[in-house]
Parts: sequence; structure tokens; C-alpha cells
Amino acid sequence: MSSSFQGVSNLVYLRFGVIVFGLLVWFSPVPQGLSVEAWHLFAIFITAIVAVIVNAVPIFLSAILALSVSILTNTLTAKEGFSGFGEDWIFLIIIAFLIARGVIKSGLGKRIAFLIIKRFGKTSLGLAYSVIAADMFIAPAFPSNTARSGVLYPIVNALATDSNSKVEDGTRKRIGSFLMMCSMAGLTLSSTLWLTAMAANPAGAAIAQEFGVTITYQTWIMASCVPTITLFFLIPWIIYKVYPPEIKETPEAIEIANTALAKMGKLSKNEWIMSITFISMVALWIMSSSFGINKSAVALLGLAVLMLSNIFTLEDMKNEGGALETLIWFAILYTMSVYLNKFGFMGWLGGHIAYAVSDLSWLAVYVSLVLAYVFIHYFFVSQTAQMLALYGVFLEVGLTANVPGELIALMLLFATNFNAIITPQGSSANVIYIGSGYIKPGEVYKIGGIVTIVNTFVFLTLGTAWMMFIL
Amino acid sequence: MSSSFQGVSNLVYLRFGVIVFGLLVWFSPVPQGLSVEAWHLFAIFITAIVAVIVNAVPIFLSAILALSVSILTNTLTAKEGFSGFGEDWIFLIIIAFLIARGVIKSGLGKRIAFLIIKRFGKTSLGLAYSVIAADMFIAPAFPSNTARSGVLYPIVNALATDSNSKVEDGTRKRIGSFLMMCSMAGLTLSSTLWLTAMAANPAGAAIAQEFGVTITYQTWIMASCVPTITLFFLIPWIIYKVYPPEIKETPEAIEIANTALAKMGKLSKNEWIMSITFISMVALWIMSSSFGINKSAVALLGLAVLMLSNIFTLEDMKNEGGALETLIWFAILYTMSVYLNKFGFMGWLGGHIAYAVSDLSWLAVYVSLVLAYVFIHYFFVSQTAQMLALYGVFLEVGLTANVPGELIALMLLFATNFNAIITPQGSSANVIYIGSGYIKPGEVYKIGGIVTIVNTFVFLTLGTAWMMFIL
Repeated sequence: MSSSFQGVSNLVYLRFGVIVFGLLVWFSPVPQGLSVEAWHLFAIFITAIVAVIVNAVPIFLSAILALSVSILTNTLTAKEGFSGFGEDWIFLIIIAFLIARGVIKSGLGKRIAFLIIKRFGKTSLGLAYSVIAADMFIAPAFPSNTARSGVLYPIVNALATDSNSKVEDGTRKRIGSFLMMCSMAGLTLSSTLWLTAMAANPAGAAIAQEFGVTITYQTWIMASCVPTITLFFLIPWIIYKVYPPEIKETPEAIEIANTALAKMGKLSKNEWIMSITFISMVALWIMSSSFGINKSAVALLGLAVLMLSNIFTLEDMKNEGGALETLIWFAILYTMSVYLNKFGFMGWLGGHIAYAVSDLSWLAVYVSLVLAYVFIHYFFVSQTAQMLALYGVFLEVGLTANVPGELIALMLLFATNFNAIITPQGSSANVIYIGSGYIKPGEVYKIGGIVTIVNTFVFLTLGTAWMMFIL
Repeated sequence: MSSSFQGVSNLVYLRFGVIVFGLLVWFSPVPQGLSVEAWHLFAIFITAIVAVIVNAVPIFLSAILALSVSILTNTLTAKEGFSGFGEDWIFLIIIAFLIARGVIKSGLGKRIAFLIIKRFGKTSLGLAYSVIAADMFIAPAFPSNTARSGVLYPIVNALATDSNSKVEDGTRKRIGSFLMMCSMAGLTLSSTLWLTAMAANPAGAAIAQEFGVTITYQTWIMASCVPTITLFFLIPWIIYKVYPPEIKETPEAIEIANTALAKMGKLSKNEWIMSITFISMVALWIMSSSFGINKSAVALLGLAVLMLSNIFTLEDMKNEGGALETLIWFAILYTMSVYLNKFGFMGWLGGHIAYAVSDLSWLAVYVSLVLAYVFIHYFFVSQTAQMLALYGVFLEVGLTANVPGELIALMLLFATNFNAIITPQGSSANVIYIGSGYIKPGEVYKIGGIVTIVNTFVFLTLGTAWMMFIL
């Protein structure tokens, strides 16, 4: 009782502290070169972000409070404050969430995973590759690494326990820990590979558009494929060296896959429909910019097909309150970030930073920005929150320092994904793996840190060279 | 097996028929005075509405298909097609949905109902009044008559069964049928009374704004209160005469209320918070237009208070997929209706009808419009769908015929609510009462028809005189 009371009263203090912080910023003298609205919007925004970082409130609550205060104080008009909800790409994300449910429900997600395991799962290392390959394959229609971890985790977990690697009896390191770590690291790559593999990606593309940089589905995949696929080969091998599994051969995995596939039987009608819908959607998305096809309209059509064939039903919809939650906080923080830019805040802050680094070459600025962006993630729980808070400023600094626009715009969005494993709380997808007990939080700092450094290195060298070649 | 197969194949034919209908309209020669876009948008919109009316697909599926087709055929740009999602009043509705959940969860909804029953529930008629009064009282924070029926139905059901009026043993007419019918009729009044008592109300106000007619929270309640409260006294008494309960005295009801209230004990902390939040929200909404307070920001703040005090939690949010469903179909059909107007379709159709009635006085036009609007509801399952499909045209005709703008704008929106009991399927709120078995669908056509006639009569006479006096 007393400890719970203690907990509550600590939370009250914490929340009170956040409010005081917000009021201090709000009533501070407005810096020269900024309008009062810009400063006030910044005060509300930074308070909302700090509230989330210090865990005073969940991000949803923080966002609705921020929007309410922005409108009631006339910092934003209602029209401005709700404008983010009218962005078509937000519904690309929300609708794809629902379609992802169809991939799971139809059984197609599992089948793809087991097919890949059957083919490549003879060794521990092969198994790791096959789990990540499955992830990358389903990623374009799963705009959430958390949702994908929900598909992959049960499979990885089954592979581990059936190979007699369990947490309870101290055998987690036989193979379970290794596979979990690889899958967690793999999510950073699958999210980087596709524009639609993570909610923050199209949001970032929309922000880049505000700065005059256009990112299409095609340029994204072209730019990301070479460094990401290189890392796909590299990362499991590195984890194999620094965090090795005790067993190297895994004949059980192939048995598991065979049994599961035998039980599943032939591709069901629903899986056929789901496959065709899935492949058509991705194909249309890739062609979207060349043929002027709207990606969100394609997603709506895909969902309609799944509903017409009863793969996704209105009953399923009832449980999708989480999608509404995401829609609301996401659109709000996006809107505030956009208006910070429109009100001149990003330009002002970016200009100051750019001035400080104006003696440096654009390449030096570029490398510094990417490194800073990657390691600041130590302080952020949500990848998307960091992107919405910092992407605009970093982009502004880069553009002012003459870094090629597409290069810096894409690179920072890639970094939003490939730094996710830097801390245990760096991505909500990590939580499910760590929650299993197979991975200790301390191990994430070490192994995840190494993965993040390798990711960053490959993207800064090979990746940057490749992008400069194709863009 | 064969009948289900038959059912499926019938559905396929029906859907095929709807598609053929849509293609016929699309490829018909474009009427003089209309742009191709306007005609194509009309073809898509009318097909979506027909698909819902003939029950070929649910309204959500119809809406997402319609939007997808509109964008993929370049009838609407993506920016236009998703613009409705950026309307602040849509989130007024969605957020209020969540707040209503708090009213239920905190126990406050039940307590209000029982307090009113305790005070007025001595007779069958008094009981009917008390159920409707409770409904009217909670309505401003429940933007859905369906949601309110979810609060009221269990109470009415308990009152009936505890008075030994049951469906199974043939005693439904003792009192159950009467109470259910009164509560169902009462919902038409509670929805008419408040701008925020039904999702279609603020949507209609937004459409009226497109036609240059401003409807505030204050003018709404001022205009609606006199006819609605008159009907509040009239309707239960009329139902008492034409659909009488077999028992007239109901001492059990007071006992039930007393027992329930005793069990509830004193007002809990959560009920206190809920009450204060509720009353503050309604007060701020009423003052909103005078003081320039945004209603949606108030709703967000109200929800934030409930979340800070754990009355509504993120766990509760997970089950609110229905709110997302409503948001999506509602915003889409609203947007299409707005663009039918912007593209000149409403003006064109309204002009033609207005020309046909140009010999009539404005009063005759007004009465004809209201009567037509009320009785067309025979063909519509959803009140909101009818409003989105027809409100613009009817308003246009009225304005062209010089009917006072506020009068016709408000009256048609009132009619959207007070005609809901004209058929069993006229409102989703009816379904739960009829589903109980206490009311036979055939009785709704008769008794609901009488209620609709009385509602319409009072609004056309007293209501119209009152509105002309105050507006």
C-alpha cells in the first residue's frame, strides 16, 4: 500500500515538475528572431516531449494535452491544430496496420516464415538469416516494427524452446538468446529497407517535402537496398561472433517448419487472396510516383479486398483501438513539428547551429549530424518521437550547410530506424524480446551498441557512396 | 450448406448489380451545367449510398471503396479526399465517444439514471419520463444515440424484468414493451436537444457553414429546447395511450433504484471527477462561441483529465476500434458530400428542384422540404448517411426559395434526429431495443410512425414559430 502510494505521489511530483518546466520555457523572454507564437509552440512541444522522456505521462496523453493547450492558448488555430489528420500518408499507415492484421489472420505471415526456415534453417546462423529475411519480406505492408515483432517473436520463441534452449533452466544461451538478438537487430534493417515498414518513414518524407525535398517509394528503396542488404549479411555474422549460440547445428528447426507446414496444408483461399493483394499493393506502391498513383488509395483498396473476402472483418476492427491511439498522437506531434517549421522555429534554431559549424565542409557537417542523430537516441524512448522532434532541425542544418538534400533527408530517416537497438527502450519492438528473459537489458547496451555502430559505419561509408552515386 | 452458399451467391449478385448501377451512372451523358468531375463524384457517391441501402456492403467498406475509387480515378485529389479528416469537429465526436466510456466506467451514468428513477418512478408513466430525462441529461457528452442506448437499455431491461414483465413468459406488455418504446422514442428527442448528442449534428453544422449559415452551440440549444421539451412531456403520454402498459403503478422501480443506490454508496472519487469534468465541458461548450473557445480542444482536455485520473486508460483505448471505424466512414462520406457541393452538384440539383417549386411561397417550400426529408428516412438505414447524402441539396433548395437560412438549416438537422423511430432500422439505437424481443418490428412502424408524426407536427408548428421568434 505505502509503496504504491509512494509511487503515486512520486508521479504527482514528476508531473508537477514537468508543468513547472513548461511554464518556465513559456514565460522565458522570446529569443530575438522568433515570433511569440513560435516560442510558445516550442514551449508546449518541448514540454510534451520531456513529459514522455521522463515518463510522466504516456505519449498519447502528452499529445492530446499539447494540442488542447496549443488551441486554447491561441498558439495554433483549431484548423491548424487538426490539419495533420488530413494528411493522406497518415492513413497509409493506419490502413496498413489493419492490413497487417489480415496477413497474420490469414496465416500467410507464419507460412512465409516457416518456408524460409525450412530452406535455410539447418544451422543457428542460417536460422538467424532466415528469420530476418522473413521480416524483410513482410515488412512493406507492416508499417510498425512492433507489429512485426508480434509475428516474429512467437516463431523465434518456438524455435528456441524446441531446441531445448529455455530461460527457466538456464539454457537461454544455447540458441534462444542469439536468435532473439538477431531478430531484434533485424528489425532495425527491415524498417530501414522500405518506406512503408515503419510509421515514422512516410511521416519523415512528408516533413522533408515541407523543406522542398521529395522522397518517393522508388528513391527510398533504391537508396536503402545496398547498405541494408549488406548489413543483412553482416549483422547476424557479427552477433554470431560477439554473442555466440552454444549450438551451431539446428536440425530441429527444419523439423518444426516441416511439421508446421504439413499442418497448414496447401495454401488456403484466404492466403491466396492475401498474397495477391499483398504483392499487388507493394507493386503499386513502387510504381506510385512514376504513374501518379496515390499510395493511400491503394492501401484503402487493399483493405477493401480483404473485407470483401472476409479476411479482415468489422469484428476485427473493434479491437483496433490501438490504431486510433497511434493515429491521434502521431498526427498531433507531426502537426506541431510542421508548425514549428512554418512559424520559423526550425529555421531559426537550424540557422544558429549551422552558423556554429559554418567553417566545416558539408561532408563534415553531414557526418556530425548523422552521428549526433544516432546517439541522441540514448535519450528517446520512441523512434517516432525523436524523428518528429529533431528531424526538421537536423535537416535544416544540413541543407543550410549545402549537404545534398536527398542524401541528408534519407540518411536521417534511415538512422531513425537503424539506431533502434541502441538501448533496451530504444524501440517498442525491443520490449517483447527483452520481456522474454532470453536477453538481459545490459546485453542490449553492449551487443545493440555494436550493431548500432556497424549499422552507422556501413551507412556512412558504403551507403553514402551508393546514395551519392544513384541520387 | 446450400442455403449459406445461396446466401453468398445472392450477395455476389447484389454487389455485381451495384457495380453495374455505378458504371451506368458514371458513363451516362453528363447533364448540362455540370462538370465531368461533379458527375463522376456523384456517380461514386450515389453508388456508395445505394450499396449501403440495399445492404450489399457495410457502410465502412462502402466508404473506403468510394474514397479509393475517387482518388484512383482522379475525381478527387488525395489532398481533397482526405481533407475531411482534418476537421476539428470530427474529433469532437471521436473524443466524446471516449469520454462517454468514462461516464459508463465511473458508474456516474447509472447513478444519474437511478437517482431520477427514485424521484419519479412511482408509476409506469413517471418511470418512462424519468428514463427519458436521464437520457437528455447525459446526452451532451454522448455524441451517439447508439452509445446512449447502451447505457439506458440495461437499466430499462432491469426495470422490466424486476416488474415481472418478461418476453419468455408472454408478459412483455405488462410494462417492458411500454418502457422500451418510450426510451427508444426518447432517444429521438435527446439527440435533437444538443448539438453534441449525435454525430450527425456537428457534421451538419459544418456543412451549413459551407452554405454560409452559422450554427453555434448556443443557437442550437435555444432553438431546440422549446419544441423538444414540449415533446418530452407529450410523447410518453401519447405512447401511454396508444401502447399502454398493463400495470400503472411501479413501486418495484423505486425499490430497485434504492437498492442499487445503496449498493453504490456515496459518490466515489471517480464519479466526482467525472461529474465535474462533464459539467465543465458542457458549460465550456455552451460558452464556446461567445468566448471563442474551441469545442474540440475542450473535449481533448476533458479526456486528458479522465486519463490523468485513470478513469479512462490506454487499456480501455484498445477496445475502441469502433471509434476508428466511425471516424473513417464518417469523414469520407462527409468529405464527398462537401465536394459534391464545391463541384457545383448540390447547387445544380437544388436549382432544378427550386425552379420546379418557384411558384410556391417560402413557407410552402419549407414545409414540403421538411416533410419530404422526414419521410425519405423510410429508405435510409443510417441517419447520418441520409444527412450526408441529402442535407446539402435540401438546404440549397430552401435557401434558393428564400427560406430563412438558420431556420431551414436547424430544422433539417432536428429532423435528422426526430425521424429516427420511423422504421425499426431507422437508427442503430433502435436495434438493441427491438433485439430484446419486448418490441415487435411491426409495432415500430405503427407506434414509431405516430411518434414521428407528432414530432414533425410540433416542430413544424410550435417549433417553427419559436425559432422565427428567437433567430
